[in-house]
Amino acid sequence: MSNELYFEDLHPGLKFNSSRSYKVTAEEIKEFAERYDPQPFHLDEAAGESSFFKGLAASGWLTAAIVMRLRVESIHIAGGMIGAGVEEIRWTQPVRPGDSLRTEAEILNVRHSASRPAFGVVRSRTLVFNQRDEIIMRSVVNFLAPLRHPA
Amino acid sequence: MSNELYFEDLHPGLKFNSSRSYKVTAEEIKEFAERYDPQPFHLDEAAGESSFFKGLAASGWLTAAIVMRLRVESIHIAGGMIGAGVEEIRWTQPVRPGDSLRTEAEILNVRHSASRPAFGVVRSRTLVFNQRDEIIMRSVVNFLAPLRHPA
Repeated sequence: MSNELYFEDLHPGLKFNSSRSYKVTAEEIKEFAERYDPQPFHLDEAAGESSFFKGLAASGWLTAAIVMRLRVESIHIAGGMIGAGVEEIRWTQPVRPGDSLRTEAEILNVRHSASRPAFGVVRSRTLVFNQRDEIIMRSVVNFLAPLRHPA
Repeated sequence: MSNELYFEDLHPGLKFNSSRSYKVTAEEIKEFAERYDPQPFHLDEAAGESSFFKGLAASGWLTAAIVMRLRVESIHIAGGMIGAGVEEIRWTQPVRPGDSLRTEAEILNVRHSASRPAFGVVRSRTLVFNQRDEIIMRSVVNFLAPLRHPA
């Protein structure tokens, strides 16, 4: 997709669905956990069974990383999507081995940046669904988008 | 460290510093980016130079994952640290190859959980510093802590 988006192209209500689903494997859950979130319920099926999660569950930070992947693939900002902060993340259901995740993002708000006049700040909400269309995560994040015609 | 913390042990003002620094390499920045945030400024030095970041920079989601690792190592909640949502993340400086990150966490607030009577909800602020003691990220996140003596 070569159509890169500038600030002027973005407006509240504009929606971006992920172009695919992302299948989460037990291997990826454990590999991520070993590196970044080494807790029993993210590392081992048996330990997961006897935990709060009642089974192996993905780290919420793995889920957030997968969501970034799906957003980068489906929202093509000129020069790249530069994070400008997270307003909220909620993990609403555990992510299990074999789950397939997809995202629905919507622009909530756009404004010019006071500190960076060549950019605007775009606020977006993302809903993340599994293969049963249950919402497993939702987030509100900000990113920068360059002006096509800076003043 | 075998001293596991329960809800009753946690109170506003309690602080947890990371037990070590985490050195970020160019290899880890690129490897994470290939998988979860494949944007030029996270993948390639030359592309980084000509970008907003003026050099290779870590994905903010890699930084968040490293912060989770440092928190898991330094805040020992009985049964594990179960995320209960993010209130805010701000990435305040780029993370570069060779940077060493450390965290300072502070409990902001504790309350009993209405929906899960065996747990309390703990709100914590984390400041993330590089080797020059610059704040590169700050966050406010919630986690669950089990009651030692559930009602």
